[in-house]
Amino acid sequence: MYLLKCQTRFKIAAVAAITLLTSLGAHAAHPNLVITTDDVKQMRQAISSNGSTKFATAFESLKAQVDEQIAQPITVPVPKDGGGGYTHERHKKNYQLMYNAGIIYQLSQDDKYANYVRDMLLEYAKLYPTLGLHPKRKMDSQNPGKFFWQSLNEAMWLVYTIQAYDLIYDSLNADNIKTIENDLLRPVSLFTSVGQPSTFNKVHNHGTWATAGVGMAGYVLGEPEWVEKSLYDLEKSGKGGFIKQLEMLFSPQGYYNEGPYYQRFALLPFVTFAKAIENNEPQRKIFEYRDGILLKAIDTTIQLSYNGLFFPINDAIKSKGIDTIELVNGVTAAYGLTNDAGYLDIAKQQDQIILSGDGLKVAQALDNNMTKPYSFKSVAFGDGNDGKQGALVVMRTQVGGDQALLFKPAAQGLGHGHFDKLTWQFYDHGNEIVSDYGAARFLNVEAKYGGRYLPENETYAKHTVAHNTVVVDETTHFNANVEVGNSNYPTLNFFETNEYGTVSSGEISTAYKGVDLERTLALINLPELQSTVALDIFDVVANKAHQLDLPLHYKGQLIDTSFELKANATQLSALGTKNGYQHLWLKAQAQPQSGLAKVTWLNENGRFYTQTSLVKGDESFLFTQIGANDPHFNLRNENGFIRRVEGQKQHKFISVLEPHGEYNPSKEYTLEAVSRVTKLEYSQQGDLTLVELDIKGNSYLVAINKAQTSAKNTFNYQNKEFTLNGRLGVYMMNNNQE
Amino acid sequence: MYLLKCQTRFKIAAVAAITLLTSLGAHAAHPNLVITTDDVKQMRQAISSNGSTKFATAFESLKAQVDEQIAQPITVPVPKDGGGGYTHERHKKNYQLMYNAGIIYQLSQDDKYANYVRDMLLEYAKLYPTLGLHPKRKMDSQNPGKFFWQSLNEAMWLVYTIQAYDLIYDSLNADNIKTIENDLLRPVSLFTSVGQPSTFNKVHNHGTWATAGVGMAGYVLGEPEWVEKSLYDLEKSGKGGFIKQLEMLFSPQGYYNEGPYYQRFALLPFVTFAKAIENNEPQRKIFEYRDGILLKAIDTTIQLSYNGLFFPINDAIKSKGIDTIELVNGVTAAYGLTNDAGYLDIAKQQDQIILSGDGLKVAQALDNNMTKPYSFKSVAFGDGNDGKQGALVVMRTQVGGDQALLFKPAAQGLGHGHFDKLTWQFYDHGNEIVSDYGAARFLNVEAKYGGRYLPENETYAKHTVAHNTVVVDETTHFNANVEVGNSNYPTLNFFETNEYGTVSSGEISTAYKGVDLERTLALINLPELQSTVALDIFDVVANKAHQLDLPLHYKGQLIDTSFELKANATQLSALGTKNGYQHLWLKAQAQPQSGLAKVTWLNENGRFYTQTSLVKGDESFLFTQIGANDPHFNLRNENGFIRRVEGQKQHKFISVLEPHGEYNPSKEYTLEAVSRVTKLEYSQQGDLTLVELDIKGNSYLVAINKAQTSAKNTFNYQNKEFTLNGRLGVYMMNNNQE
Repeated sequence: MYLLKCQTRFKIAAVAAITLLTSLGAHAAHPNLVITTDDVKQMRQAISSNGSTKFATAFESLKAQVDEQIAQPITVPVPKDGGGGYTHERHKKNYQLMYNAGIIYQLSQDDKYANYVRDMLLEYAKLYPTLGLHPKRKMDSQNPGKFFWQSLNEAMWLVYTIQAYDLIYDSLNADNIKTIENDLLRPVSLFTSVGQPSTFNKVHNHGTWATAGVGMAGYVLGEPEWVEKSLYDLEKSGKGGFIKQLEMLFSPQGYYNEGPYYQRFALLPFVTFAKAIENNEPQRKIFEYRDGILLKAIDTTIQLSYNGLFFPINDAIKSKGIDTIELVNGVTAAYGLTNDAGYLDIAKQQDQIILSGDGLKVAQALDNNMTKPYSFKSVAFGDGNDGKQGALVVMRTQVGGDQALLFKPAAQGLGHGHFDKLTWQFYDHGNEIVSDYGAARFLNVEAKYGGRYLPENETYAKHTVAHNTVVVDETTHFNANVEVGNSNYPTLNFFETNEYGTVSSGEISTAYKGVDLERTLALINLPELQSTVALDIFDVVANKAHQLDLPLHYKGQLIDTSFELKANATQLSALGTKNGYQHLWLKAQAQPQSGLAKVTWLNENGRFYTQTSLVKGDESFLFTQIGANDPHFNLRNENGFIRRVEGQKQHKFISVLEPHGEYNPSKEYTLEAVSRVTKLEYSQQGDLTLVELDIKGNSYLVAINKAQTSAKNTFNYQNKEFTLNGRLGVYMMNNNQE
Repeated sequence: MYLLKCQTRFKIAAVAAITLLTSLGAHAAHPNLVITTDDVKQMRQAISSNGSTKFATAFESLKAQVDEQIAQPITVPVPKDGGGGYTHERHKKNYQLMYNAGIIYQLSQDDKYANYVRDMLLEYAKLYPTLGLHPKRKMDSQNPGKFFWQSLNEAMWLVYTIQAYDLIYDSLNADNIKTIENDLLRPVSLFTSVGQPSTFNKVHNHGTWATAGVGMAGYVLGEPEWVEKSLYDLEKSGKGGFIKQLEMLFSPQGYYNEGPYYQRFALLPFVTFAKAIENNEPQRKIFEYRDGILLKAIDTTIQLSYNGLFFPINDAIKSKGIDTIELVNGVTAAYGLTNDAGYLDIAKQQDQIILSGDGLKVAQALDNNMTKPYSFKSVAFGDGNDGKQGALVVMRTQVGGDQALLFKPAAQGLGHGHFDKLTWQFYDHGNEIVSDYGAARFLNVEAKYGGRYLPENETYAKHTVAHNTVVVDETTHFNANVEVGNSNYPTLNFFETNEYGTVSSGEISTAYKGVDLERTLALINLPELQSTVALDIFDVVANKAHQLDLPLHYKGQLIDTSFELKANATQLSALGTKNGYQHLWLKAQAQPQSGLAKVTWLNENGRFYTQTSLVKGDESFLFTQIGANDPHFNLRNENGFIRRVEGQKQHKFISVLEPHGEYNPSKEYTLEAVSRVTKLEYSQQGDLTLVELDIKGNSYLVAINKAQTSAKNTFNYQNKEFTLNGRLGVYMMNNNQE
């Protein structure tokens, strides 16, 4: 296997080497990175021929914005501030502005835009040689920048600036070229590559930005070696570099190890550099690499969204979604490559037109109403570069409203990964219902820890208790050790989607020593009731007795419990002292009797949700609110409850989550505010898990086949015979619907 | 004054008496309440002539809805449940359905709709004689219902049902008429009038529903005495009844004493009964009564909204707004009366067409794009029937975004009023920023105290500390005594709106014995900065030393304070033991040094807000969260901070609230996250209040004239001469804008 990979790599390298001289020689034509001279011709035509098209509108809009900005004096301040601070934001604005002005120059052919970019580049060329490392860099960091506190931003600066330079190249005189290249672009490229080998060679999104920036500089400045190093690392060993990143950072289905938030972020340099490679050296067939991995990566990023927002696993900022500029670029490239009209559906929602050759194609297709619905699917996205390090599972249904269930028997996802093996999230009617905290961060808000990840990201958000999965003895998965996490991962036992719904099961025995965690989740359609329920069976088996906690973080206001609460009315204490527990206030607790224990909440948009748990009287329910030990008010005060058993070697947490009813105070009606579930019974027959569920007068039998292979099964239940094909069956036992 | 009013009233009564026989005799034609036979003719034509108009669409939509409902068997259950419960909701649905089916019968001329209403009425006629008082009535209540737990719902049932009966009257045979009238409509009318004199005669919205129902029954059943009693109370004394309600419940500007939430609710029976009176006895000129008070009431209800929602003062459900059916009816009637195209702007936002004569006019005007922008204004709405019991003040601006400031030197507003004299609220960019809790209630959610007002409405939401105004010694205004509150009210000192902004001042000396509370609020435009700030000067003068608290309830996440916080990190306690304080957790406290004390928060929509207080080192800041002593999780866990001074006879709370910047994590930028206010200085020159405000490099002088009358003023400040015309002036002292 390794040999095969290496052969493929060397073959690509060989082809590349042969074509290098020709292709780089041909790059006397500028621009020729993402945008080519051919693209420019067509774009100019599109603008001149008709003023009311989407593309022309986008051009006019960007031109107006650039006009306003270049009316201000050029400001290239001496670097001083961290993320969110003035000089940080100014330098970010500058590279974006240079890129935009470069585009407008090419499309308008008006020299003033080129001159503006030239003058700013000359200012930068004056400043750069005077700079040491950034004063706000982290002192123990391997990757400081000069313009910015971290080299990631420096690489992003290069990605934009080298394109801006390419766009205005033909307007420059030899003196300008010399100054800008020698005093700015070459030293920045060298600082970003040989100056920071650990970042440049790293198989990680920071490495992608660095290799993309330096590789494109290689094309523009005629440095084929830089391209080679960007593709195969500084030693051209193939152990790092862009090709290795394409090989290692995505699973065969195009899932990016760190999750969709970082996948989206990583996408831009991947797509940008790949387009530049394609335009300069089509022989490398970069978009065909690994069976079209880049296209799969773009598509998977879309699939990993709900109602326009990415599933916020790991260190995710929750408001990021499909309209982010990185995915706009991605979707634009995907349509350019495939002409698949489903991407136009996404482009329409994004409502942003890129001024590029592919952007023109998208704009014209939207003008011609060629959009077809993009299809969101239930999928288990294999994790790890071999796709076998667990999976990120998405279940979807449209029965009773647009719903999604995310199940995470996925790998750790490097340093931004959370310790949340087998966690889940639930979405209904466009809203987050069972929630994930995401990252503890106020991006770029200086007052909040300089806009960086808050200390509470480490002390709360990453910990297991901040998620919806089992915590053993109040300790975090892998003892919160990232390296241990990275080298262990869950197994995806099975995944199936059929007429009854979708079912998946995963397990892990390395999160805690001597403890097997196995979870089976099913999103079950009940079309007779126009409803969906989520069935959750979490099976814990240990070699000695433990305390087992299963938290559920919900969005909304507690409405009712089927059992009595003992509330901490006049005084609240933190639930624990470490591993995230120190951040939870204990608001109330209860020990429901054997039977069904219900917790009902109401979300902001007026829908009720009831979690019905099947308990034996040994589970306590602890109601919590986030916010203890938070002296700077850094955390959001969200609610949850924890099901807890103590001193158990084995336990099954069994529950059903049921969306129901509507609270409409504006129209003054309230429908089905009370859970309809009246019976929940669990049994096993060999490999078969059988759950009897009575809801709204209907009695259902849910059968899940957990055998190694899912052959056809015939079984008896309550003296009736049933046949199960595949993993999941749902049978109506009677039909008393009122 | 009293004599004049009485004369007017008796004149109306006399005119009415003369015209009674003729007008009632003429009501052989059915329908003739809100909808007349003429209306029906035009509506039928509108439907038949063109299928794609707004009116025809509304008809088809309602018809489809009615068709679906009448396909179900008629269900008239024996009353059993309280608000939100099954029988409660069923009876509500029934009267709405009978009304709708009646309309569809008139428009479609299809007998099946009339027959359905007839059969349901016959079911009700069978049930009603068997009923005693409702089993879920409040035991000490004066106003139980039979179908419903309270007679308010019973009166609403009558308002709809009598119209439904009128609509299908011409389809009935004599036997049906006899049964329905004698076994149902007459006894319900009598139960609602002579059966409950305290409700029927009450000058209160419950009385309006009762008189509207009984009065319309009087027209339909040929009982002119019922009409008279509805208009002038059971004794026809004029001390109660509809006319007295029109006289007493609205101020001369059309403000309804209980606030917009109840104004909206009260509007429907007012508008409905008035239309019926107009159609039956136009000689009463009911819409001209009190200088067109009903139209003013409708218009004021619209003015008392922001971004489509009503200002949630008093016992308000916060999601109620201009699209509520009551105001749809009100706006429809207002347009019918005035042809004012501004109402079409509101109708367009409401997006609901009423199937009535006026509804047809609105629909056709919308079809013809006759809409003009409705103008929201800065107004002081006088409170009390004479308009002199204080005022509810609305300040608005469009500088730097759509903003509103609500100031409440208003009267108590009866039993649903809150003890919040001189409180304020602030709105920006469509969102609530400085907030009012509204009512503690989950309308119709059975699990939440039967859907009624929660106990926490009395123990928290009504108390002063739940609002943004001064609390003395942790006791509530008027010692939380409604009657004392009703008989005392603030004074509106002045209100003025001009080019600089809007200013208002109010005071009250009866909220606490020996304590004068005076507040001056100004919403100030700073067009140079494209910004607005709210200036707040709260002046407390007492005859002995007290503890003074000024809470501010904000919506969002605390971002920063300019002073150090001492947080209660591991344990929280309730702030107090009574008057609402028992429901506040004390999360942190601080005692800022003399100078500017800043608190910055971020709202959900990504805008920053900073309250800059001018302190002398004697104020503590207590940071709170709602939720203590709330064992059933009935309260929303919202945040606030309380400025506190202890042992003071006098204190001025001075502050400026400043919206600024933008947090956009999706697009990854953060702008102006830090307050721009660098100086806040306060001084007085006689009746002039002078505030120097430095913000973003600009230095402003704000002058407010608090004299009895606002003549022209010339004054000196820092050796410069200024002239102030009117109440509010804003002068730029320098101009250093960067």
